[in-house]
Amino acid sequence: MSVYSALQVSPDRLFPADPGLRRLCNQLYAEVKSAPIISPHGHTDPAWFADDMAFDNALSLLVVPDHYVLRMLYSRGVAFEDLGVPDREGRVRVTPREGWRRFAENYYLFAGTPSRLWLDTTFQRVFGLDIQLTADSADHYFDHINECLQQPTFRPRALLDRFNVAYIATTEHALDPLTHHKKLVADGLSRRITTTFRPDDVLDPDFHNFAANIERLGELTGEDVASFSGYLAALRARRAFFRSMGATATDHGPATPFTADLDVNDARRLYQRCCAGTASADERTLFRGHMLTEMARMSIEDGMVMQLHPGSCRNHNQPLFALFGFDKGADIPRRVDYCEALRPLLNAVGNDPRLELIVFTLDESNYARELAPLAGHYPALRLGPPWWFHDSPEGILRFRHAVTETAGFYNTAGFNDDTRALLSIPARHDMARRMDCRFLAEWVSDGRLSESEAMHLIGVLTNDLVTEAYRLGDRSSSR
Amino acid sequence: MSVYSALQVSPDRLFPADPGLRRLCNQLYAEVKSAPIISPHGHTDPAWFADDMAFDNALSLLVVPDHYVLRMLYSRGVAFEDLGVPDREGRVRVTPREGWRRFAENYYLFAGTPSRLWLDTTFQRVFGLDIQLTADSADHYFDHINECLQQPTFRPRALLDRFNVAYIATTEHALDPLTHHKKLVADGLSRRITTTFRPDDVLDPDFHNFAANIERLGELTGEDVASFSGYLAALRARRAFFRSMGATATDHGPATPFTADLDVNDARRLYQRCCAGTASADERTLFRGHMLTEMARMSIEDGMVMQLHPGSCRNHNQPLFALFGFDKGADIPRRVDYCEALRPLLNAVGNDPRLELIVFTLDESNYARELAPLAGHYPALRLGPPWWFHDSPEGILRFRHAVTETAGFYNTAGFNDDTRALLSIPARHDMARRMDCRFLAEWVSDGRLSESEAMHLIGVLTNDLVTEAYRLGDRSSSR
Amino acid sequence: MSVYSALQVSPDRLFPADPGLRRLCNQLYAEVKSAPIISPHGHTDPAWFADDMAFDNALSLLVVPDHYVLRMLYSRGVAFEDLGVPDREGRVRVTPREGWRRFAENYYLFAGTPSRLWLDTTFQRVFGLDIQLTADSADHYFDHINECLQQPTFRPRALLDRFNVAYIATTEHALDPLTHHKKLVADGLSRRITTTFRPDDVLDPDFHNFAANIERLGELTGEDVASFSGYLAALRARRAFFRSMGATATDHGPATPFTADLDVNDARRLYQRCCAGTASADERTLFRGHMLTEMARMSIEDGMVMQLHPGSCRNHNQPLFALFGFDKGADIPRRVDYCEALRPLLNAVGNDPRLELIVFTLDESNYARELAPLAGHYPALRLGPPWWFHDSPEGILRFRHAVTETAGFYNTAGFNDDTRALLSIPARHDMARRMDCRFLAEWVSDGRLSESEAMHLIGVLTNDLVTEAYRLGDRSSSR
Repeated sequence: MSVYSALQVSPDRLFPADPGLRRLCNQLYAEVKSAPIISPHGHTDPAWFADDMAFDNALSLLVVPDHYVLRMLYSRGVAFEDLGVPDREGRVRVTPREGWRRFAENYYLFAGTPSRLWLDTTFQRVFGLDIQLTADSADHYFDHINECLQQPTFRPRALLDRFNVAYIATTEHALDPLTHHKKLVADGLSRRITTTFRPDDVLDPDFHNFAANIERLGELTGEDVASFSGYLAALRARRAFFRSMGATATDHGPATPFTADLDVNDARRLYQRCCAGTASADERTLFRGHMLTEMARMSIEDGMVMQLHPGSCRNHNQPLFALFGFDKGADIPRRVDYCEALRPLLNAVGNDPRLELIVFTLDESNYARELAPLAGHYPALRLGPPWWFHDSPEGILRFRHAVTETAGFYNTAGFNDDTRALLSIPARHDMARRMDCRFLAEWVSDGRLSESEAMHLIGVLTNDLVTEAYRLGDRSSSR
Repeated sequence: MSVYSALQVSPDRLFPADPGLRRLCNQLYAEVKSAPIISPHGHTDPAWFADDMAFDNALSLLVVPDHYVLRMLYSRGVAFEDLGVPDREGRVRVTPREGWRRFAENYYLFAGTPSRLWLDTTFQRVFGLDIQLTADSADHYFDHINECLQQPTFRPRALLDRFNVAYIATTEHALDPLTHHKKLVADGLSRRITTTFRPDDVLDPDFHNFAANIERLGELTGEDVASFSGYLAALRARRAFFRSMGATATDHGPATPFTADLDVNDARRLYQRCCAGTASADERTLFRGHMLTEMARMSIEDGMVMQLHPGSCRNHNQPLFALFGFDKGADIPRRVDYCEALRPLLNAVGNDPRLELIVFTLDESNYARELAPLAGHYPALRLGPPWWFHDSPEGILRFRHAVTETAGFYNTAGFNDDTRALLSIPARHDMARRMDCRFLAEWVSDGRLSESEAMHLIGVLTNDLVTEAYRLGDRSSSR
Repeated sequence: MSVYSALQVSPDRLFPADPGLRRLCNQLYAEVKSAPIISPHGHTDPAWFADDMAFDNALSLLVVPDHYVLRMLYSRGVAFEDLGVPDREGRVRVTPREGWRRFAENYYLFAGTPSRLWLDTTFQRVFGLDIQLTADSADHYFDHINECLQQPTFRPRALLDRFNVAYIATTEHALDPLTHHKKLVADGLSRRITTTFRPDDVLDPDFHNFAANIERLGELTGEDVASFSGYLAALRARRAFFRSMGATATDHGPATPFTADLDVNDARRLYQRCCAGTASADERTLFRGHMLTEMARMSIEDGMVMQLHPGSCRNHNQPLFALFGFDKGADIPRRVDYCEALRPLLNAVGNDPRLELIVFTLDESNYARELAPLAGHYPALRLGPPWWFHDSPEGILRFRHAVTETAGFYNTAGFNDDTRALLSIPARHDMARRMDCRFLAEWVSDGRLSESEAMHLIGVLTNDLVTEAYRLGDRSSSR
């Protein structure tokens, strides 16, 4: 094996060059290195944890479902077909081994990306691999990983133990039957592995099949969704069902952060037009905006934390979407403005400390300009961690640098990994902890924080804020 | 007192970790550490300096008027009522000591914020406190500060001497009688403590009571404001009055940087509609934009420096505004564009080197994109220092990094503290000087500036540019 | 000469302070320090290389054509007339020596700017000057530079050899006769010095004299431009002519990145209205947007690389433009959005790996938000290097920090100098190489790249990507 380059994952990775700062980083990191992982927002498949079956192979686990990986390969001319990505009819053109080889040949494209950091860390720490992934080592990787996956210690639940995951939330749409979460409830695991209520399917008139979804909502809840009040009652019922499965939070992914707070008669009228399919584009946006405020009101009633993730232009690449469907890396951020957009909702409910509203952005120009000032004022508002493209070493540094002076640390919500790539979860949380150490160390060094304050704050950033923001109580340490 | 943690304000604070850079920072800082403070733009109360009475207590001096402090406490659920903030009727619910205790209990929220830096520096340097502010030390702080405030050395004028303030400007609206500044003129202090002409009240048709304000403007000046020409004459008269009280500058805070340069007949017609209350929203904006260009023309006539601070969405939180009124921390920046917005004004007067126009921004995405290129081209234009939320260590670094390459140092205007928090003024100027040292040291280290050039530039940034930009002549060293 | 300060250009310039990082920077830099210069996009005058005549004098070579230099001097009140800039009638008011003295007196204004770095490097490395440029040394500089320029080694072709320029592209409009490039073809130099096809003059209905330009296009190509299909044929012919002169790329500088993909009948109708001068502003924009997509389609046919540079508000200062014309430093960036704007073009042709589309921006807020995600997805798209105001040490660092995590290194296009300032070309490429070394060194230090990977990547960033992106084949090493 000596012809292969060693796979090195530095114990000092992500720490700055200056020896004094690096020492300080290591001191801070020692405080949280082994802390349990709290993952309050993500997209892992609940079937994994409910059924606890072995994963199939390296390609289907590490490549096919990871749109960060797929999009980079695609951007440099690697066809989805050659990576074993199924088309809309489920057809696959290559064997898993062939797909894996194609991935390995092009692995150099990831130089400098967080995917590379997460994958290398996973290869070394989870699979014990000690040479780099290249075209030459592709088969060795493929065989070794597949062997591992057949062992009981690589089953989903065993991995959660091994990764020291205290809490993990998945995300399901409002109409999801939560079959797997029912199994988790039955197995006594629902306080540790739970769902999140994501009702875009029944709140956003632009969601595919909106009218049919509303009808199904009525069937599932037994409410009369012909009327707006019946619709609201059905939403309340569905929230209660998700809570009964362990959920503490809702999640909302509108195209823009636009909110509204309509008179009930106007809302009623709009609802009818949206259901009938006669609403204009502006009316559909208005309805969606009003429903965010209704969701916030329900959150005050039932205590569910509300998450808002606006600003992604979904399926930007329509020809590719026609062939391969959703979540293939063609979701592109667009510019959004929060100041006026959130005002109706915040004026309605933002002064109520019972509401916990966590806002995310893909448009970083808003951090210092609008979001930190808003979060540094409204009691109900917190800033979520860097999201998606910004969930990265640079993204985390930019976030802390841009928001801390105005919003402080206590108007933020800890880290979340937002991932469907289960095996990368430890590497992602480790990255976030390291970057927070780096940030704190620099501010200790230049006298903006004392050392003892930083030692306290690293625990706050890693454990306390996420527990508080997502109202996890003792769940986050409940293993 | 040994149970309390020591209050430490590092002599190397804000300097980078690298030993060579830190040494260089200290060399540069030695040049300006003791330089007089020049504060050409701020919001201190002129009554303090005119009457020179003792300040009342720690809470009413350090907490209640400081909207940076109030908003952070409010954002984490501390009620204004519990901090002794008077409502619109002037009612207060707690004693000053109770309000101070509430502040002290929550002081940890400020970790990492500039408020914390300024307050700690003030506690140590101004009041000689040597333990940290916590719930436990709240009473000690409150009693000690109140005792200090009763001493003659803590009177406003004595503080100006102690802080080595060579020049300080307050800000008053066009209709202000300048009673306190008249007293300062009488006391021979008007060259050191002066006013700034802020005519938003009579230029912006969206300002509350605009029509009544115009009427009052006519009364104060004896001009016939029924006609547009009488209105312009009244504005000229009012500018002259402010100049006679020592003012060298005007200040303008429109919602956006929109400017216009109308034909006089159009301007006349718009004026009538704005006064009659029949102008549409677009017409009111157009009038406000045109009047900025008129102000620039008057500045060419009378030599007053013109400051433009656009982009704040005032009183974003209407329910809170209804209870507590203005300046309670609910002013939120919004995105603004300068390139097209300033074009009419700059095309009309921007090539005239007699005009000194200082532009500020809350939207930092404009620094490198629009503002530095504009300031690096138009003779009349300078960039003001980082404003408000960005008047901070990170904000200053971002500003210098974003604008210097395109606009150089000489198209900027030095520092201004823009504050009503009198006691924080030395700490704020000290912060700005330290960050400028840090920036220069880094560019010396990587060969972009020579050491002797940097030693010269730190004086330029601290003293020369502000003196030149605000046309202070020998006032800035006139103590 | 001892009274003059020495002119120092540090061998470690632009490298960070930390000794370990600096060592690493020097190791990386050693790999590319002497690599040939590849300059695929710029604005040098082809007459220089065709005629190979001596340059006239220091002022006309280094000051008058450099709008970076002119605008900074103008911004601080130096009149164009005093710098020897000819007005629209070609009148000049001062002698070259007088203009040079004015420049020298104000050279301090450039402290901290890239112009200063490039000029000082040029003075020292190209002219062997060893004292700083000030009012006192102005005449010495002027005389020394002028003497040099009379020597054969300072002729344009000799300078290309001395600068180790392997490849340089100029930029010409579609109607340009390419007289000088014909000479270069005849002299066997067209593979080294070539043109770029910039058809804004015949694609953008808002371009001055659009209709007349179209007519001329018909004459030049013999196509019947009365019809849309004739117009397309004429464009194809003109592209072929440019290719026959050696061009590998087209360049497009629309006001915004708006694109469209119209039905052919709609395009035909719009074309007629644009030629007739009856198209509305929206229709003209729509036509321009559609023609970008047509250009992309032609690029797929003929293999020309397509460059897109949107977002500059040209001739912002109309009074100055009236006196002095184009390119006098009054082009100001404006905010642009790429996500929706590029969608029609990218949906039409962005999945075709035969297309090479290089996009630039003046609005850096787009780097991480829209451009890196787009380039990290579409096979046809690459990000161009920092452009214009951002072609600077800070600009390059911001670019790498903002885009690398999402787009990687391989979706970028190397460096280009985009300059008409011939003598600054080595200093500009040296700056870019040094900043890339700095960036890579920091990521090696914190474990995001291995040292051997960085040693490989510095060559990729300096040589490989630009060769590949501009399809230069062996030209880039063909001296």
